[in-house]
Amino acid sequence: MSTPPRAGRAHRLFPAEPRVREVAADLYGEVADASIISPHGHVDPRILADDIPFADPTELFITHDHYVTRLLHSAGVSLEDLGLDPAHTVDPRQPWRTLAAHWHRFAGTASGYWLTDELESLFGVTEELSPENADAVYDRISSALRTDGFRPRALFRRFRIEVLATTDDPLDDLSVHARLAADPSFTGRVVPTFRPDAYLDPEASGFADRIERLLDATGRSATFDGYLGALEDRRGFFVDHGAVSADHGVLKPFTVDLDAAAADRLFAGALAGGLSDAEARLFRGHMLFQMARMSTQDGLVMTLHPGVRRNHHRPTSEVFGPDTGHDIPVRTEYTENLRPLLEAFGAVPGFHLVLFTVDETVFSREIAPLAGFYPSVYIGAPWWFLDAPDAMRRWRSAITETAGFYRSSGFIDDTRAFLSIPARHDASRRVDAGVLARLVEEGRVSAPTARRIMRDLVDAIPREVFKL
Amino acid sequence: MSTPPRAGRAHRLFPAEPRVREVAADLYGEVADASIISPHGHVDPRILADDIPFADPTELFITHDHYVTRLLHSAGVSLEDLGLDPAHTVDPRQPWRTLAAHWHRFAGTASGYWLTDELESLFGVTEELSPENADAVYDRISSALRTDGFRPRALFRRFRIEVLATTDDPLDDLSVHARLAADPSFTGRVVPTFRPDAYLDPEASGFADRIERLLDATGRSATFDGYLGALEDRRGFFVDHGAVSADHGVLKPFTVDLDAAAADRLFAGALAGGLSDAEARLFRGHMLFQMARMSTQDGLVMTLHPGVRRNHHRPTSEVFGPDTGHDIPVRTEYTENLRPLLEAFGAVPGFHLVLFTVDETVFSREIAPLAGFYPSVYIGAPWWFLDAPDAMRRWRSAITETAGFYRSSGFIDDTRAFLSIPARHDASRRVDAGVLARLVEEGRVSAPTARRIMRDLVDAIPREVFKL
Amino acid sequence: MSTPPRAGRAHRLFPAEPRVREVAADLYGEVADASIISPHGHVDPRILADDIPFADPTELFITHDHYVTRLLHSAGVSLEDLGLDPAHTVDPRQPWRTLAAHWHRFAGTASGYWLTDELESLFGVTEELSPENADAVYDRISSALRTDGFRPRALFRRFRIEVLATTDDPLDDLSVHARLAADPSFTGRVVPTFRPDAYLDPEASGFADRIERLLDATGRSATFDGYLGALEDRRGFFVDHGAVSADHGVLKPFTVDLDAAAADRLFAGALAGGLSDAEARLFRGHMLFQMARMSTQDGLVMTLHPGVRRNHHRPTSEVFGPDTGHDIPVRTEYTENLRPLLEAFGAVPGFHLVLFTVDETVFSREIAPLAGFYPSVYIGAPWWFLDAPDAMRRWRSAITETAGFYRSSGFIDDTRAFLSIPARHDASRRVDAGVLARLVEEGRVSAPTARRIMRDLVDAIPREVFKL
Repeated sequence: MSTPPRAGRAHRLFPAEPRVREVAADLYGEVADASIISPHGHVDPRILADDIPFADPTELFITHDHYVTRLLHSAGVSLEDLGLDPAHTVDPRQPWRTLAAHWHRFAGTASGYWLTDELESLFGVTEELSPENADAVYDRISSALRTDGFRPRALFRRFRIEVLATTDDPLDDLSVHARLAADPSFTGRVVPTFRPDAYLDPEASGFADRIERLLDATGRSATFDGYLGALEDRRGFFVDHGAVSADHGVLKPFTVDLDAAAADRLFAGALAGGLSDAEARLFRGHMLFQMARMSTQDGLVMTLHPGVRRNHHRPTSEVFGPDTGHDIPVRTEYTENLRPLLEAFGAVPGFHLVLFTVDETVFSREIAPLAGFYPSVYIGAPWWFLDAPDAMRRWRSAITETAGFYRSSGFIDDTRAFLSIPARHDASRRVDAGVLARLVEEGRVSAPTARRIMRDLVDAIPREVFKL
Repeated sequence: MSTPPRAGRAHRLFPAEPRVREVAADLYGEVADASIISPHGHVDPRILADDIPFADPTELFITHDHYVTRLLHSAGVSLEDLGLDPAHTVDPRQPWRTLAAHWHRFAGTASGYWLTDELESLFGVTEELSPENADAVYDRISSALRTDGFRPRALFRRFRIEVLATTDDPLDDLSVHARLAADPSFTGRVVPTFRPDAYLDPEASGFADRIERLLDATGRSATFDGYLGALEDRRGFFVDHGAVSADHGVLKPFTVDLDAAAADRLFAGALAGGLSDAEARLFRGHMLFQMARMSTQDGLVMTLHPGVRRNHHRPTSEVFGPDTGHDIPVRTEYTENLRPLLEAFGAVPGFHLVLFTVDETVFSREIAPLAGFYPSVYIGAPWWFLDAPDAMRRWRSAITETAGFYRSSGFIDDTRAFLSIPARHDASRRVDAGVLARLVEEGRVSAPTARRIMRDLVDAIPREVFKL
Repeated sequence: MSTPPRAGRAHRLFPAEPRVREVAADLYGEVADASIISPHGHVDPRILADDIPFADPTELFITHDHYVTRLLHSAGVSLEDLGLDPAHTVDPRQPWRTLAAHWHRFAGTASGYWLTDELESLFGVTEELSPENADAVYDRISSALRTDGFRPRALFRRFRIEVLATTDDPLDDLSVHARLAADPSFTGRVVPTFRPDAYLDPEASGFADRIERLLDATGRSATFDGYLGALEDRRGFFVDHGAVSADHGVLKPFTVDLDAAAADRLFAGALAGGLSDAEARLFRGHMLFQMARMSTQDGLVMTLHPGVRRNHHRPTSEVFGPDTGHDIPVRTEYTENLRPLLEAFGAVPGFHLVLFTVDETVFSREIAPLAGFYPSVYIGAPWWFLDAPDAMRRWRSAITETAGFYRSSGFIDDTRAFLSIPARHDASRRVDAGVLARLVEEGRVSAPTARRIMRDLVDAIPREVFKL
């Protein structure tokens, strides 16, 4: 046995047992430099279209990352002091110093891991952040950000991003995407994603006005058929602009196939604002069903991100708006809820339905069994609170024995934090290498097959699942 | 430290850490050759009664194994092409080639592990299945199947099966079991299992006709008391033919003790087909309660396999029938549902209730605490989707700290695939050896006690739980 | 690499991998001798006030420990034979011999681990308990118990207990606590905990009488406001006697903020005994809300221990009373249930709410996300069935990536078994050392930060969470 690799940066996230680590390092080597396919995320395409330098370390790492602000908030720091209240400006050094003072609170968290990786990989910061070095690190990052190498497009190339999906409103004119596509000096592929939640939920605030705008924009009549046609029109517009998927962030993945009369009646009630809770649920369930139906026709991959109670702390959302760190998961059920949809479309060739969750209990119980039968169903990569090394291992353990590696979706970074994209994909690759290495060492997967799987996980699989 | 054993066939499924692996290998040695007790499964007893050679590799490994066909189906292969539609014959070589072409999809799955083990242990196939070797492997297996050593009874002896339980309809005449028992040239023990689901659920299709046949067969009257008597008669008939358990595959393990008048009224309504959903639930709950009551009287071990939505994709079941790979688990609750049953019978001496689940969340929360108090309750081994190495480890981890090793049921293979029986029991033994080895190395169980537990898990415990 | 430490007593509960074990041992060394802070438990303060020797090994280790009696009961031993029926005396040697005869059943359980640790650490018993040595071990313990070194106060000092919280009825006069506080020869800190469950649940038996006693004791009127005032009075009395927390053992953590008229009406109905199930639920939910409101005013830390169906087997509780081993967990929901409470008080400075659970599924899904945003919310340490090495690891794995180490509560022993306190805290420290060591070896936490966290987990964190 050669001297085993010691713990350290090169072997981070690999299991500690020396032989497993050795195999993991070998497998990771297959994909360490593979390009990044990012088929679902929340980066603003303007940063690439305009290629404007990032402002400062605080804006880059803190203000827009609700993973970071929520943990500082839990430590008693107000969101206002972190610069989240547009009405109050703060010196950007202050939030950075606050982060440094609370840095021990991030130990063991996914955010702590990513930030550490980004600070070292991108800015050469190898010390742990602390009150003592906070200003020096801030200055080092600030200097780097003023160089051309740290402008968004340069980083896009350096990160080897091949495809980047954004998330967009159905009425977005996609002019930014069009501008990027037409720009000969930008060779990356940035595609929009159709995200119609607010157009499908009669209880969403401003629903009737929004539908009126939708019908106006498409020249459709205010009937249920007109409404469906308008949605189909906008999906078609997204397809024309390169979209490959439509994303659905419902509270519960309930689906139902209503008859035409019932749908008409509920649509009229939804516009009039007079639906009961039960009727609103039926309407949403029918629209999720209709979205699947449309996917079988226009080919958009349907991704489902259910089970999050948004804006749990109303006083915070009233001041600071949505996505401020207090969206909290709830228990989610797929087997019964998705049955109508899957009975109708689960075996339709070409239909792809990717099931994400922040309720781990469904991985072995519901999602893996569904994906292990329905050719349309793929197991979404660990999402949000579960996008972290231990959670990824639990996920692989929970799904693989039932559904193998080829029914999983490939990694999804789902991030607003552009700079964290490579750290996130790299973490996923390292964890998968460790998982596969364990299976190799336990005699459950052969080394050549493990190498093939490793490569497919970052390339063939996301291309197949997202039709890229 | 001596040279640690390298990963390989002999050490498969043992943890990678060398000392844990060494202890695991030692513990496994205690039971590697122990005979197999299989107290719950779905093998057709005719194959042993008639001792007819298996037809071909496809029938043996694919057609009747819905774990295999479902994963091929999820890859886009039609069940018709796999030979599941009796109206369309397929060349048996084709499904085998299809399996070989999709073999990478089985990497990391339980089925992939078992098939690999069977191919090597039984047929000496050490290469991974591939399109290149598919025909050669097919031919090798076919040749073997034509030899006497691969006829069912020879394999039964070679597998060291001591007891094999089948699963049978309450009106089965058990003549096949009687024939086997009377055959002096067959010395194994093959026992029937009473499985009355379709006789207890008023919403099962054909319920009234089935009950009429039951009453006719037993000469009982069409009253609730007559119905109970008829079930008791048939249980007695099973006991006379060697049955040790009655198995119950309900959707929810709801139980209730109704008074006589309510039971009479619901029974009449069930026969007339006029029960509401709520009434049907009450009837089923009362009948599960009655099954426990009967077990306290006739001694049949009560096994409960709840929580599976059968035939999730109706279009598939309409063409290909049940057990075609799309039974999907649902969340299951035991604490409140079983309370009436356990208050009445949970402490009755001699009553045994084995709780299985495909909802892992109940292991630490409900089943282990129940089995850690009620002398009647045993923790069923990981079942179906959970009968796999990682899931077994999670199971032991979830139950042992609350209930120890002696409240678990011993391994249950639950299989239709006769050839997979030794691979499945062996996998369970290897995983348990690894679990115990870890506890030994962490100073939590002494080595002598670990050896005793290891032996008891495959012998004393299943004999006690299933009264063998 | 130096010779790795072999498995053994000194390294118990550390992971087996030699380098991880080495780091774990190092981290454990930071806190091995740290004093014990026990902010939640069920020790009877009289044993310290009166400092009376423990009677015998059976009373000490069996009779009052329902973790032990339940597992013996599951093996078919009657609670009467274990001495739990006051009407039947048993020779204390008999339960001890019974425990010895069933000792293998405790292998791998938390109780088995603690007892083994206590027998060795306190009484020098290094053999496994067995029928052969049962009497000799009994005699050795009995002799020790008659020495001064084994009287409660001597053990309190030897255990290095700095703070010990008891659990008390709101109408307790706390005279025992006052006596201890006033005793110059006892320098420990023993604080009461306000536990008002039976005063908040209109369905608790004897509710109206109990409220009458409460109102009498405080001189308050029989109105809802009088009732709130009476509870505030008693909380104040507890605060005056050193209490730092109020504990709530509800079935479901439902909360609601009712208007004054509704609360008045429900209170009147509760006293009259005429509330429907739905009304009783509203009343309980409003009272949990009121308890939080009071905590924001009087500063008592609010701890929540929900989700246990008490006295599952009524026949046993009728004979042997509560806490006899058949309290069984149920599924629990926090996100929606706690929303009214957290919207009102979740961001109130100084309010502390510690969420415990015996439903593991909520750790990653609900509790960690809540604690990762709300400054008031802390993640309770693994409780009851989950207070065991593997469960603790699962807990750290489930919460840390979302919320870090600093949103967890510090260890809580929650025990009636005074002698088990050091074994339990030591187990927690060992497990945390192993968890941190793995993170260090995987390059996820630096060694200096791991050492800081290790120390904070047993000192700074419980002091902060429980305001000590």
